[in-house]
Amino acid sequence: MSQTQGEFDLIRRCFASGFPLGSDVLLGVGDDCSAVRPPAGYDLVQSIDTQVADVHFPHNAPAHLIAGRALRCAASDLAAMGAAPQGFHLALTLPDSNPAWLDQFAHGLRTTAHDLGLPLLGGDTTRGPLLIITISVQGWVPQGKMLTRHTAKAGDELWVSNTIGSAALALPDVLKNPASELGLAKAYYHPTIQFTLGQRLVGIASACMDISDGLLQDAGHIARASQLAIEINADQVPTPVSSDHPHWQTCLSGGDDYQLLFSAAPERHNDILALNSLAGVNCTCIGRLTAADAQQGAGVSVLKDGQPFSPQATGYQHF
Amino acid sequence: MSQTQGEFDLIRRCFASGFPLGSDVLLGVGDDCSAVRPPAGYDLVQSIDTQVADVHFPHNAPAHLIAGRALRCAASDLAAMGAAPQGFHLALTLPDSNPAWLDQFAHGLRTTAHDLGLPLLGGDTTRGPLLIITISVQGWVPQGKMLTRHTAKAGDELWVSNTIGSAALALPDVLKNPASELGLAKAYYHPTIQFTLGQRLVGIASACMDISDGLLQDAGHIARASQLAIEINADQVPTPVSSDHPHWQTCLSGGDDYQLLFSAAPERHNDILALNSLAGVNCTCIGRLTAADAQQGAGVSVLKDGQPFSPQATGYQHF
Repeated sequence: MSQTQGEFDLIRRCFASGFPLGSDVLLGVGDDCSAVRPPAGYDLVQSIDTQVADVHFPHNAPAHLIAGRALRCAASDLAAMGAAPQGFHLALTLPDSNPAWLDQFAHGLRTTAHDLGLPLLGGDTTRGPLLIITISVQGWVPQGKMLTRHTAKAGDELWVSNTIGSAALALPDVLKNPASELGLAKAYYHPTIQFTLGQRLVGIASACMDISDGLLQDAGHIARASQLAIEINADQVPTPVSSDHPHWQTCLSGGDDYQLLFSAAPERHNDILALNSLAGVNCTCIGRLTAADAQQGAGVSVLKDGQPFSPQATGYQHF
Repeated sequence: MSQTQGEFDLIRRCFASGFPLGSDVLLGVGDDCSAVRPPAGYDLVQSIDTQVADVHFPHNAPAHLIAGRALRCAASDLAAMGAAPQGFHLALTLPDSNPAWLDQFAHGLRTTAHDLGLPLLGGDTTRGPLLIITISVQGWVPQGKMLTRHTAKAGDELWVSNTIGSAALALPDVLKNPASELGLAKAYYHPTIQFTLGQRLVGIASACMDISDGLLQDAGHIARASQLAIEINADQVPTPVSSDHPHWQTCLSGGDDYQLLFSAAPERHNDILALNSLAGVNCTCIGRLTAADAQQGAGVSVLKDGQPFSPQATGYQHF
């Protein structure tokens, strides 16, 4: 019996090949489920992440940039756990089945999947009124060693990787000219995912997360999860502009850089500085964690030049 | 620093508790990733599934029914692989953050998660113009034993579980009165997920899938994946209406029942009939698989009363 195989052909053509392969993958795209053989001695860590057109990215950005950024943003959660990347599933909601757009999207996804070492395991394509991308990612971490948010200790130092704020500063330009990936827009479309740093922080960091909603807001997650007070020295935060720049505060509250924010005991200070010899890694101590008390509850306070400082905003509000 | 914690409070309140627990879950909702300890000797199988308002369900259906059905439909892929359910991640795109609606949605999700034995491992909530639910599900299957689509053999019999077509026949009533879950609408909102049958078919079935897009279309997936011809005796297909009913053909092409479609060698015929002693299981042999040749390519042909028969439609077209 002849059948119109619209959806299935479309998906098969674009997503069936060209992605990195995983030695632990038994079954990839094309069956009811993917199948993976877990390596002995490792735990499975997983996250799911959605990006909605004109909420999380400009709908008119080039498809390959949309795809690449979506995969990077999703994969960052694996780095935050100290995991080695294993693979991802893609749920794609599309307003139409434009083959040229889909080819470009798949191209960007493939390129990024190779960059990150993430095989595509499976997916679902649905029709909807606008582009929505949901990606679930997974990785392996040595048994019981994953980095979590609730395990920071009073007395720990607070650290951040690399520079915070480039992607947030790029946003006005990205919205004006979504096709440009130069300058700061590179940080927006191609955030560096700190897989290597995350894995090296296993056994060193006491708590870790990636910064997706803004430094101050995300620091609040570690503070509340660990029931501690966090004090951030804003002038020590590595930003692409100096603290007298009119948009400096945007760096403190903007997300989208996907750098790691982590805590560690002060005696690990030099171990962390030693990690700065890794390619693309530069960790900076930006604050400390103390016991939460009646005066200073679990949360974040900010100092600038040694004085209490009230930022204009703390981070991205989804609702 | 005081923060508006809109999204996070909303999610925490609705999804943080009341879900079934899993002994293999190390870390659930609330960190960058969930963490799970894989049991020795098992493979991980996973699927991702999206439902869009007014594409996959009426937007004005009660929230608890939308949630329950979405989780059941997603979980069905695990049954199709012969897997034991392990857990799920939820990506929810919402037009607003209506607490009453979200409470009802979470209630339906919790109830169904308990019915299916599926812990909620993590999620993401985003704002979008309409309700979109993406669920990734996962389960464990004994190493190398998962049921796949491409492994049917020429000479095998084709089987289906229970009755096909109730959900498709219910659809006009569901669209007219989305709040009713009585009669045939029960099949639409609360499809029985064949976890037990799927696991019992491991070692018996040669290929298996769940019927989500319609019997004839889904049979085509097994045929093409296995490079075989499938012959279905339409009058042997168990349907809720007889073959002289004006909507009988809807049963052959309608999806949404989430019954299992599987192949097995003829010598396993009685083993399969013996499975009909399981609660809620009634398997029927509805056809056979033969080698694909020049005349009869890999695909599905239908007989009715022993004569070639051309159905009006084969299944749901996503695009």
